[in-house]
Amino acid sequence: MKLSVISEFLAANGFPNEIEGDSGVTIRAANTLEDAGEGDISFLANPKYTDLLCKTRASVVIVKPDVDMPNGKTTIRCADPYAAITATMIRLHGHREHPRWDRDEHAIIAPTATIGSDANIGPFVTIGENVRVGSNATIYPGCFVAENVNIGDDVTLFPNVVIYDGSRLGDRVTIHAGSVIGEDGLGYAPVDDKWLKIPQVGRVVIEDDVEIGACCAFNRATLGETLIGAGTKFSDSVVVGHGTKIGEHCMIVAQVGIAGSTRIGHHVTLAGQAGISGHLTIGDRARVGAQSGVMNDLEPGADYLGFPATESARFRRQLSLVRKLPEMKQHLVDLESEVQRLREQLENHVDARP
Amino acid sequence: MKLSVISEFLAANGFPNEIEGDSGVTIRAANTLEDAGEGDISFLANPKYTDLLCKTRASVVIVKPDVDMPNGKTTIRCADPYAAITATMIRLHGHREHPRWDRDEHAIIAPTATIGSDANIGPFVTIGENVRVGSNATIYPGCFVAENVNIGDDVTLFPNVVIYDGSRLGDRVTIHAGSVIGEDGLGYAPVDDKWLKIPQVGRVVIEDDVEIGACCAFNRATLGETLIGAGTKFSDSVVVGHGTKIGEHCMIVAQVGIAGSTRIGHHVTLAGQAGISGHLTIGDRARVGAQSGVMNDLEPGADYLGFPATESARFRRQLSLVRKLPEMKQHLVDLESEVQRLREQLENHVDARP
Amino acid sequence: MKLSVISEFLAANGFPNEIEGDSGVTIRAANTLEDAGEGDISFLANPKYTDLLCKTRASVVIVKPDVDMPNGKTTIRCADPYAAITATMIRLHGHREHPRWDRDEHAIIAPTATIGSDANIGPFVTIGENVRVGSNATIYPGCFVAENVNIGDDVTLFPNVVIYDGSRLGDRVTIHAGSVIGEDGLGYAPVDDKWLKIPQVGRVVIEDDVEIGACCAFNRATLGETLIGAGTKFSDSVVVGHGTKIGEHCMIVAQVGIAGSTRIGHHVTLAGQAGISGHLTIGDRARVGAQSGVMNDLEPGADYLGFPATESARFRRQLSLVRKLPEMKQHLVDLESEVQRLREQLENHVDARP
Repeated sequence: MKLSVISEFLAANGFPNEIEGDSGVTIRAANTLEDAGEGDISFLANPKYTDLLCKTRASVVIVKPDVDMPNGKTTIRCADPYAAITATMIRLHGHREHPRWDRDEHAIIAPTATIGSDANIGPFVTIGENVRVGSNATIYPGCFVAENVNIGDDVTLFPNVVIYDGSRLGDRVTIHAGSVIGEDGLGYAPVDDKWLKIPQVGRVVIEDDVEIGACCAFNRATLGETLIGAGTKFSDSVVVGHGTKIGEHCMIVAQVGIAGSTRIGHHVTLAGQAGISGHLTIGDRARVGAQSGVMNDLEPGADYLGFPATESARFRRQLSLVRKLPEMKQHLVDLESEVQRLREQLENHVDARP
Repeated sequence: MKLSVISEFLAANGFPNEIEGDSGVTIRAANTLEDAGEGDISFLANPKYTDLLCKTRASVVIVKPDVDMPNGKTTIRCADPYAAITATMIRLHGHREHPRWDRDEHAIIAPTATIGSDANIGPFVTIGENVRVGSNATIYPGCFVAENVNIGDDVTLFPNVVIYDGSRLGDRVTIHAGSVIGEDGLGYAPVDDKWLKIPQVGRVVIEDDVEIGACCAFNRATLGETLIGAGTKFSDSVVVGHGTKIGEHCMIVAQVGIAGSTRIGHHVTLAGQAGISGHLTIGDRARVGAQSGVMNDLEPGADYLGFPATESARFRRQLSLVRKLPEMKQHLVDLESEVQRLREQLENHVDARP
Repeated sequence: MKLSVISEFLAANGFPNEIEGDSGVTIRAANTLEDAGEGDISFLANPKYTDLLCKTRASVVIVKPDVDMPNGKTTIRCADPYAAITATMIRLHGHREHPRWDRDEHAIIAPTATIGSDANIGPFVTIGENVRVGSNATIYPGCFVAENVNIGDDVTLFPNVVIYDGSRLGDRVTIHAGSVIGEDGLGYAPVDDKWLKIPQVGRVVIEDDVEIGACCAFNRATLGETLIGAGTKFSDSVVVGHGTKIGEHCMIVAQVGIAGSTRIGHHVTLAGQAGISGHLTIGDRARVGAQSGVMNDLEPGADYLGFPATESARFRRQLSLVRKLPEMKQHLVDLESEVQRLREQLENHVDARP
């Protein structure tokens, strides 16, 4: 594909850009600065990698307008190189094409299930009574879809995904391998020093365009719904507790755990291994740093860090003081010596009085 | 179901209670205060939600004897509303009914396996040589039960659960989808700067009435047994190391990790994302807070928090002092200025002596 | 097996040793000091368990040359008892023998796949187009191997493992149940306040002799490769981000999370629940303690602990000072009183001057 074609595609998709150099060069693939070779297009978004501009063998690099480009290499200058390389990759590589099973003869589909047109259901899949699968949905081998589940159009379930009874998935939901949606949460009442199981009669509702990584576990609500808002994305091994409601377009990184009955706003970021207690309210566009432990409600739009999660600037101040504790301790010891000297001086002076 | 029937059921099951209002009202379902409508019964256990009493559209609410009920809404007063709503839900909704497969023709069961009466084994299940499955056990599609495994009566394995060779599960054990029991632990000896694998020849033993969430991984012992005591409950994504022994009726929240060769007492609570080092002893009824990192033995009955896990009251005291470090630092600076002033005053005074 | 045979086997395999006591005793099995009985061989490597030497019913114990052995029990003295018991266990018990399926008739193998001699493929396995499976590989039931995957010789995939398209596994790689290799990472560009998915066109490459625990999730690279070096071992529920490169012979404990584009050296140890940020460089033989949160590059060969991860000795010093904050605060208060007394004394003195 000629570079000029990519440039025009970007411009047409909302990324105005300018080519510096040879607009006729042929691009075969996108790649990282480090691994790119002849015929590859690459990009620089994180300034940490600026040094690689001198070394890369990429034929073209997408950079911001103000980046100094060494060696007169061909560039596309664009305000958002990260979004532009994304669009370029979609144009060059497209998204994954699924194998085609139609309705594989080794899938077991209950007679009362309704399967949409062009649905693609692999072998060793089990689909329960009264399930509805939308059109053009792909269900990979080994998935289990329990009774009364509703799956929208263009949904993809990768292999060995398990959807418990009554769950609802919107359109274009993607769930990666091994994830489990709608299992019972940890609901028990203490009776006579034992745990009495609380029937978990709620369900999970996942809105449109949600993507969920591998090995995640989203609990059904005890009563009512566990809700995942449209467009929210999850990495791997995330656990969501029963009855929790997550807003739209959030970004939830790997190994995050969110306890039950918590409300998370829209466009919230939870970084890796962060934990959120139950029965909290997290404001829209709040950002929680990696490994933070959230024990209280969080304000919208603010950054939090640490255990317990604290407004980030304040946490960093505390942390820098903790790191200076050895000096602070020495300061205290020195000051005590000084006071001791003063006392002796004063006493000597007083004693010395005639 | 008439409210009077629920009230009598509760009383008969150890929850004495009193109806205030219309005992003839018909109850269809249990629900949260927030989501309940006409015909629903709800409950108030967590005082945080008291404000919802004014707004709920539930027909009946279960509350403690001393709660002020606005609007003359019908209530059941009971000492433990949480246990009472649990019993009510069991009466109204019952527990999940499993699909009925009997011995599905698409399950592969070794000829030497012994399958109990009324066992319910789904398609795409593999059961190995010399396995014993108890009566009335349900094994969902996609499960794998390796050779020499012993599964008790009334056990439920949800889809895609994997039980490695030689594991033993008691009666009424429930394991949610995607969990793995009995895989090899991280056992290697360093030899010549490489890792030499130690054969993992022990097993996992899970006693009666244990429930395990989704995507958990319980390592077999290197030698001897990894043991899970009767009635203990686990949420999702919990990892238990090789040779660890957990007592009865513990509550282990999501994403907890317990390293190998640790002994955990009975009725211990480990909150979400807590980590327990190996070769430790955790006392009965100890409670470990979320994200805590336990590096030492813990006393029975005490509360612990933080990294490394510290007795909670002490940890909170330390934490409040860390938060006051900026003031403490200022205090130190002020005091130094004061000492400086004193010194000058003293020196001036001494110098001024005649 | 006679003890003399074990002793000779150890000597022949690089573990010189000496028997004290009855070299003709018959050994049936290896076991822990605590659980061993008549006919068992055990070992003492961790001094914490020295007291068990008096109580064990093991017939023979492997100990270091300098350990005092009570009761004249038969011992093997050897410099590295942990490696020696490992070798003994391999000799006595061997490693797990897999069930034998050959090419099970219930496996679905694409016609373009190449399956090596003696490969052992269980029921309900799906193998995609252009897959290559090496000789003597074992693929347990329920596994999914997507198109264009390359699996080496003597590989073992335990049940329900999922390998995404294009992944490469070297020889003797072992992956435990439920793990997922090569799923899409969390790659999205923010466009118009929504997340635009970045095609994940890279792959995962796993070198020879890697062992991976249960329920792990290793992301494919966005571009290029996620790389796992030869001989590296992982416990359960580990997540590896897209494009991360891990060196040889590392030891990665359960629930560790490593974000994307990080480079980890060889022989690195990451203890349980540790988290590593993206785009970092971790030096060879660095050791990161449990639950640590690594936010910066780490030096080779050093020990790190805490959040954010700090050189261990420094972290312990900070921690001990945090624990002494109550005393430090009291010290400050006392010093202030002393200064106050001095001031009064000085003022009185000055005032008292004639």
